[in-house]
Amino acid sequence: MAIGEAILAKNDHLAEHNRQWLAARDITAVNLMSSPGAGKTSLLERTIIDLRGSRSISVIEGDQETRLDAERIQRAGARAVQVNTGAGCHLDAPMVQRALNALEPDPGSLLFIENVGNLVCPALFDIGEQAKVVIISVTEGDDKPLKYPHMFSAADLIVVNKTDLLPYVDFDLEAFTAHARSLQPGVLILPLSVRSGAELDSWYRWLRHPAISAERRPKSEPELAKAK
Amino acid sequence: MAIGEAILAKNDHLAEHNRQWLAARDITAVNLMSSPGAGKTSLLERTIIDLRGSRSISVIEGDQETRLDAERIQRAGARAVQVNTGAGCHLDAPMVQRALNALEPDPGSLLFIENVGNLVCPALFDIGEQAKVVIISVTEGDDKPLKYPHMFSAADLIVVNKTDLLPYVDFDLEAFTAHARSLQPGVLILPLSVRSGAELDSWYRWLRHPAISAERRPKSEPELAKAK
Repeated sequence: MAIGEAILAKNDHLAEHNRQWLAARDITAVNLMSSPGAGKTSLLERTIIDLRGSRSISVIEGDQETRLDAERIQRAGARAVQVNTGAGCHLDAPMVQRALNALEPDPGSLLFIENVGNLVCPALFDIGEQAKVVIISVTEGDDKPLKYPHMFSAADLIVVNKTDLLPYVDFDLEAFTAHARSLQPGVLILPLSVRSGAELDSWYRWLRHPAISAERRPKSEPELAKAK
Repeated sequence: MAIGEAILAKNDHLAEHNRQWLAARDITAVNLMSSPGAGKTSLLERTIIDLRGSRSISVIEGDQETRLDAERIQRAGARAVQVNTGAGCHLDAPMVQRALNALEPDPGSLLFIENVGNLVCPALFDIGEQAKVVIISVTEGDDKPLKYPHMFSAADLIVVNKTDLLPYVDFDLEAFTAHARSLQPGVLILPLSVRSGAELDSWYRWLRHPAISAERRPKSEPELAKAK
């Protein structure tokens, strides 16, 4: 077994452990992935404020360095732990396991896991989440699914953020949708704006039942092999 | 020696080989790094068009998948080779060596190496370039140097792109500058807009003499060790 395969196998074993730990407590875990600056933390801040009182929310924050994002989340009113990956470009299942022990999310709660800002590495690592959400901002260009196919193939939901900037950038939502669906024909795509609040209701509706992409689960070994 | 160190040592050896190969031909090689969608390819397209006739330019394009960027560069009028990294999150020195053999840049020319869109991995790999340029878009937020310190510590020049969008986003250029200079006190920061053309003259001026950051070169072994 190659080194990369052994690391992934160990990761997947611990990811399954995390998944069972979460399921036993009826905790819904959503893994948020995007480029740096697409708006993961802003979406979480807004979500925590808007859902306050209706649901317990906590957050695992992944970043190379700093506690900035965990502090933003705490100011918004949710519990958060920060995981710093140093030179690492993604969260893995052991990091999430340690964070769960520190965070102790409430039974029945919603747990967000904000991954390191990166459209490459996080796609390959199962961390035991129930659903993967990929966020892209309209400023990044509509060709991104073609250029980062592993990430967009792994998404259960694709959020297209910053739609308030559409008048000022060249972003063709129809072309983006066609590119994403060339990878995953039925993938859910949700354009919204954290800044203006447009379509946030659809996001909150999805969060009540975070559906897993029909094309994607369960993750099979051939699929993992293909991703290498 | 740990596996990671051995890989880096082999990479650095080949990077030095690339650097000598380029120097022997008086070729200036600039490594462009950024998040996905910050505007690397757009900046190159515009640069190729604006400098047409005054300087020979060629491009090595790095992406996980597709030849889209190489095709954009070729349409703009420069020679380009595409390197696809598959699941890999950065270019390395062996990839650049192979690309140089295929591309055969003109003696005395300007060579751009557009890395995979990623603010983490590419920072750790010397590819034999003369200067590293990190591009950030104002839509990504002014906290990025703190959250991706390896990348911003490695930059000889930081380009802040999409300044035409400043009226519509929360981006504090003074705060950004302070964050970047907390990592590298003297680092050059160049705000511009590829879309509007603002400050592109400064970019072309810098390209005539791509200065290496005083704080950064030569890359010492303790610095490499610290980056792990």
